[in-house]
Amino acid sequence: MSEPGPLLLSGLFLDPEFEFLFSPGSTLRQYRDFERILTVAEARAGLIPWAAADAIGRALLDFEPGMEDLKDGLLRDGVAVPAFVRQLRARVGEPYARFVHFGATSQDVIDTSLVLAIRDANVRFERRLAIVIGRLEALAERFGAVEIIGRTRMQSALPIWVTDRVAAWRSPLDAARRRLPGIRGEVEALQLGGPVGDRRGFGDKGDAVAAVMAREMDLANAPCWHTDRSRVVLYGGWLVSVAGACGKIGQDILLMAQGGEIRLAGSGTSSAMPHKQNPVQAEALVALARQATTLAGGLPHALVHEQERSGVAWSLEWLILPPLCQGVAASLRVAHTLLDSIERFGCD
Amino acid sequence: MSEPGPLLLSGLFLDPEFEFLFSPGSTLRQYRDFERILTVAEARAGLIPWAAADAIGRALLDFEPGMEDLKDGLLRDGVAVPAFVRQLRARVGEPYARFVHFGATSQDVIDTSLVLAIRDANVRFERRLAIVIGRLEALAERFGAVEIIGRTRMQSALPIWVTDRVAAWRSPLDAARRRLPGIRGEVEALQLGGPVGDRRGFGDKGDAVAAVMAREMDLANAPCWHTDRSRVVLYGGWLVSVAGACGKIGQDILLMAQGGEIRLAGSGTSSAMPHKQNPVQAEALVALARQATTLAGGLPHALVHEQERSGVAWSLEWLILPPLCQGVAASLRVAHTLLDSIERFGCD
Amino acid sequence: MSEPGPLLLSGLFLDPEFEFLFSPGSTLRQYRDFERILTVAEARAGLIPWAAADAIGRALLDFEPGMEDLKDGLLRDGVAVPAFVRQLRARVGEPYARFVHFGATSQDVIDTSLVLAIRDANVRFERRLAIVIGRLEALAERFGAVEIIGRTRMQSALPIWVTDRVAAWRSPLDAARRRLPGIRGEVEALQLGGPVGDRRGFGDKGDAVAAVMAREMDLANAPCWHTDRSRVVLYGGWLVSVAGACGKIGQDILLMAQGGEIRLAGSGTSSAMPHKQNPVQAEALVALARQATTLAGGLPHALVHEQERSGVAWSLEWLILPPLCQGVAASLRVAHTLLDSIERFGCD
Amino acid sequence: MSEPGPLLLSGLFLDPEFEFLFSPGSTLRQYRDFERILTVAEARAGLIPWAAADAIGRALLDFEPGMEDLKDGLLRDGVAVPAFVRQLRARVGEPYARFVHFGATSQDVIDTSLVLAIRDANVRFERRLAIVIGRLEALAERFGAVEIIGRTRMQSALPIWVTDRVAAWRSPLDAARRRLPGIRGEVEALQLGGPVGDRRGFGDKGDAVAAVMAREMDLANAPCWHTDRSRVVLYGGWLVSVAGACGKIGQDILLMAQGGEIRLAGSGTSSAMPHKQNPVQAEALVALARQATTLAGGLPHALVHEQERSGVAWSLEWLILPPLCQGVAASLRVAHTLLDSIERFGCD
Repeated sequence: MSEPGPLLLSGLFLDPEFEFLFSPGSTLRQYRDFERILTVAEARAGLIPWAAADAIGRALLDFEPGMEDLKDGLLRDGVAVPAFVRQLRARVGEPYARFVHFGATSQDVIDTSLVLAIRDANVRFERRLAIVIGRLEALAERFGAVEIIGRTRMQSALPIWVTDRVAAWRSPLDAARRRLPGIRGEVEALQLGGPVGDRRGFGDKGDAVAAVMAREMDLANAPCWHTDRSRVVLYGGWLVSVAGACGKIGQDILLMAQGGEIRLAGSGTSSAMPHKQNPVQAEALVALARQATTLAGGLPHALVHEQERSGVAWSLEWLILPPLCQGVAASLRVAHTLLDSIERFGCD
Repeated sequence: MSEPGPLLLSGLFLDPEFEFLFSPGSTLRQYRDFERILTVAEARAGLIPWAAADAIGRALLDFEPGMEDLKDGLLRDGVAVPAFVRQLRARVGEPYARFVHFGATSQDVIDTSLVLAIRDANVRFERRLAIVIGRLEALAERFGAVEIIGRTRMQSALPIWVTDRVAAWRSPLDAARRRLPGIRGEVEALQLGGPVGDRRGFGDKGDAVAAVMAREMDLANAPCWHTDRSRVVLYGGWLVSVAGACGKIGQDILLMAQGGEIRLAGSGTSSAMPHKQNPVQAEALVALARQATTLAGGLPHALVHEQERSGVAWSLEWLILPPLCQGVAASLRVAHTLLDSIERFGCD
Repeated sequence: MSEPGPLLLSGLFLDPEFEFLFSPGSTLRQYRDFERILTVAEARAGLIPWAAADAIGRALLDFEPGMEDLKDGLLRDGVAVPAFVRQLRARVGEPYARFVHFGATSQDVIDTSLVLAIRDANVRFERRLAIVIGRLEALAERFGAVEIIGRTRMQSALPIWVTDRVAAWRSPLDAARRRLPGIRGEVEALQLGGPVGDRRGFGDKGDAVAAVMAREMDLANAPCWHTDRSRVVLYGGWLVSVAGACGKIGQDILLMAQGGEIRLAGSGTSSAMPHKQNPVQAEALVALARQATTLAGGLPHALVHEQERSGVAWSLEWLILPPLCQGVAASLRVAHTLLDSIERFGCD
Repeated sequence: MSEPGPLLLSGLFLDPEFEFLFSPGSTLRQYRDFERILTVAEARAGLIPWAAADAIGRALLDFEPGMEDLKDGLLRDGVAVPAFVRQLRARVGEPYARFVHFGATSQDVIDTSLVLAIRDANVRFERRLAIVIGRLEALAERFGAVEIIGRTRMQSALPIWVTDRVAAWRSPLDAARRRLPGIRGEVEALQLGGPVGDRRGFGDKGDAVAAVMAREMDLANAPCWHTDRSRVVLYGGWLVSVAGACGKIGQDILLMAQGGEIRLAGSGTSSAMPHKQNPVQAEALVALARQATTLAGGLPHALVHEQERSGVAWSLEWLILPPLCQGVAASLRVAHTLLDSIERFGCD
């Protein structure tokens, strides 16, 4: 099995499309974009010569950094940016090498790279959210008039229609979709601050450089947010709200499955009891919701960000965000498949 | 010591003003408000006679429910609402008793009561946020031009001014203030759904009743959100962002205190070394940030809300929200005092 | 309602007996015990005159510290010990005042006090565990031979007997009981280290003083553990294992209740549907398990304990342990009541 | 860069040796071992013919299951065991196919496989713990007599020796080493229960089969623990105690680095300020401690294990344990390198 990750997780819990978004290849592409657009913006602001921007842009065109050196750099510096910049400078050569990464700092590159990965993730989340909501609409259309028992506190309460329960499933997903643009406006923001976050390395041109970069990269323009990680926490809350919404669908389907109130196509088989139909995907949704809650719960520790830059808070975000995004992506993908597999809703 | 709570926590970590917001007295006042305004709205919608609304309103005027009976009810029902309603019905008497709580369910009362407590909390949070931000402004004015060493990754980087560091402290608090109205619009929403959340107990008047109630209670009008707890998770994220912002201030002051880069008035003394000046309030801010992170991290488990009402998810929110709000209130109060105590910023 | 805490929590989720263990009154009694036994041990070691120990012991006999002064001390010092010691010294007077708290530091008093509260908690946990396990035995005896459907992954699998399911409920509680003595041996350990944890304030008599104190207080004797909080984390893990074991019982009963496979006496009523029997206590057990998991999850942050003493890590434990212990106590109490209320196990 | 995982994490935060322990290749080897030893034990107990055990053993010798089919099985069943067993049965052929996996269930294979991975992890943890503790011994020998400032609550307290601080670093690691054998005895336990955990599929030979299997696999023999996940929680607590102990070392070194009280060889460089020496590994240790705390905090949710088998609780453990083990392995590896890099301890 060539795919990465434990055997137990492949198939259901991982998501190759999202793994790619946080892969070394994607990250290096983002680093190149950052350095290229930085020099363009700086040339436009008169901070560096246009010839330098041209030379750096050309050098970046098919720049594939030496990975051994990057790895050494990572081990030494905790981040690959210094080694990346050194290699790029060597490639650019004199007299323009010193204009590479001019006025910027590793965190500018890394945070912007993270934000670009998040943007790519959000485009996909938006699409997957729309799909799941579409499936819920279809479900309501197909089974909406079927009467089922409304259950409160695990007890039969009053009859409801399938349309009621499906509406309850939609509600937090609709809310997540409605909230996403606002969240994107906050989290998809360019990072540019320089060594201590004050943009003084750009003279009085820092804000102008940032404005151009943000426009070119289609990111929000924001003051330097090196130490203000509340955007990331906000985003983590949004992610967990999606996983939780899918988890509720999974939990309800598990409870219906126990009572025979639903029939799913192609449910899982058992090694000991071939007649059983395990609601595998519904289980996965609840597990993914608990995982997302666990992971997202660690993000706010990064708010306690020491002084002008915390290597600790920073690393914690990298350790958490990629698996969290993957888990939420898996939630939406599994929810889609699970909803498609419903063959009967309500008792026979 | 008559105040509640462990000795170790009083003074710094608790907040009597916020404890009051979630006290039995406040809760019962909120229950009364809900039942009174419900009957007014129902009378206006023609669902119950005006005479019933009047009788119920009069009965509620100085209604102090018998607490022993409420306690028995709590133990039996998990919530006090059924016992509360029974007592109120007895007080209203015939022929209007049956119009008490008409069409509603316990969760409508409890969630709306929670939301009213949150609203009162938010008014105070807004005020305390403004105060802390004001103190930061004053600090920037007083010490802003002092040069200090900017530190990244725990190392001296480049000189910055106090104004830079204070701006970094302000940034997440400003963001929290800016985000609060949007959050309030989402979380301060009337709950009205009836037994299974479909408002069918109000005939076709459910939405009209809800609209009047929301207006009268100055709450957002929203479709029934019995099972969609994403508002609460959203709110938890906001709360933790405030505690985290204060935690960063505390952490930075601790690090400055170690290096002698700050002087605080009246810092704590030690039982063994009377010469020491412990930065007690700065420590408290970091501890409160970790506590808030811990508590808020549990809230999204309530998103996995079974069927039409989960007694589990519900209770989890009550277990978490009151201490979380108190902790954030303490964060803001302690931050205020701590900032006021700064006598010197930067080295001698 | 005079009891503290939110209305929604009283009855089910709080536990007055455990609240008392962490109350100011209990804490001050523990402080007195520490200071008294410290002087006895120091006199025996020849560190202070016996007359001093006698004088201090007499002064402690009915010593009720002034609470206003303690509160001021708490606010200023973050802990009440310095103020407590000052008051005690004033009461002892010359010439022995200086022998009060000799060689010790606030953390010695506070950690030992915490450990004494934990010991009192453990005695009660042991008793409550035994009661719940006894109820499970009785249940197995009464209903053990009833056949029920064994369910795996929410699906009917094969028939089992009630005795099987009850044995599964017992297993983690038996394990918790079996593990408790080992846990107690680790966590119920005297703290004695002095200002920087090296016991040098006791000359070469530190270990001897600790040995006597541990014996007199019936605590484990251990090297100073000021900065090694792994005992507390270990204990948190044990606590959550108990709450989780009760949570599994609650979850299973909820699932049986949905399918009508169990009948509980006196289940809760609903404000809207008087015929319903809500499994209130089973819900509470699951909520308490999630709360305990949430709280205990924060404890390991105290392992990252700065230098010779962290005021942050310290405070975090106080913020978490009292509600965690109370929650676990409530779990065991509610489990007891719930098990007693089972009138039928299996379908009619 | 061919290694898996985000660029930002490679080098410091991942651990290929531990990734291998949870890789599909390792898992399939564990599945084969389980099925082989199961048949031997069953033949010895007279449950299946020796000829069947021989045939199955031969078939397993170089059995490389078709991965496409396994992947399909994973998607369908949530676990790969049913597909694995089907393929193995096909390979064994008549007349012995039906003796493959006789009386067992997927969870028996999966839990035992997990436990075997944990055992391999523990052997490595033991070794790495010994190495780190050895480095601390060497450090104490080399720098022990150097005087440094003891700091409590971030303030200078009294002078101590390096030996004191290093002893504080050792204390929780020594405790972890001392506790490991007991933990291993609990967690490294064979799982064998059959479809509903009652071993009835083995007639009256279940305990005998388990005893032989445990001996052959060098695992603890234990009653079926399908639903009692307290062992896993116990283990999670141990893991986090190791990461936390390393996190304290990292935190202390960060604080010393800020004050110039330590010099590290080859500390990281900065892309903007080449003169800076970032304490990269110390930062990583604190981040890894926070990550481990976050991950381990989710494990106890698996204690609320529904009925005779929870697909949710089960999956949650798989989602958490592999990255948690990898993180702790990275903690120990990074601690080793960091301690080796100390060139000066104390001020110049």
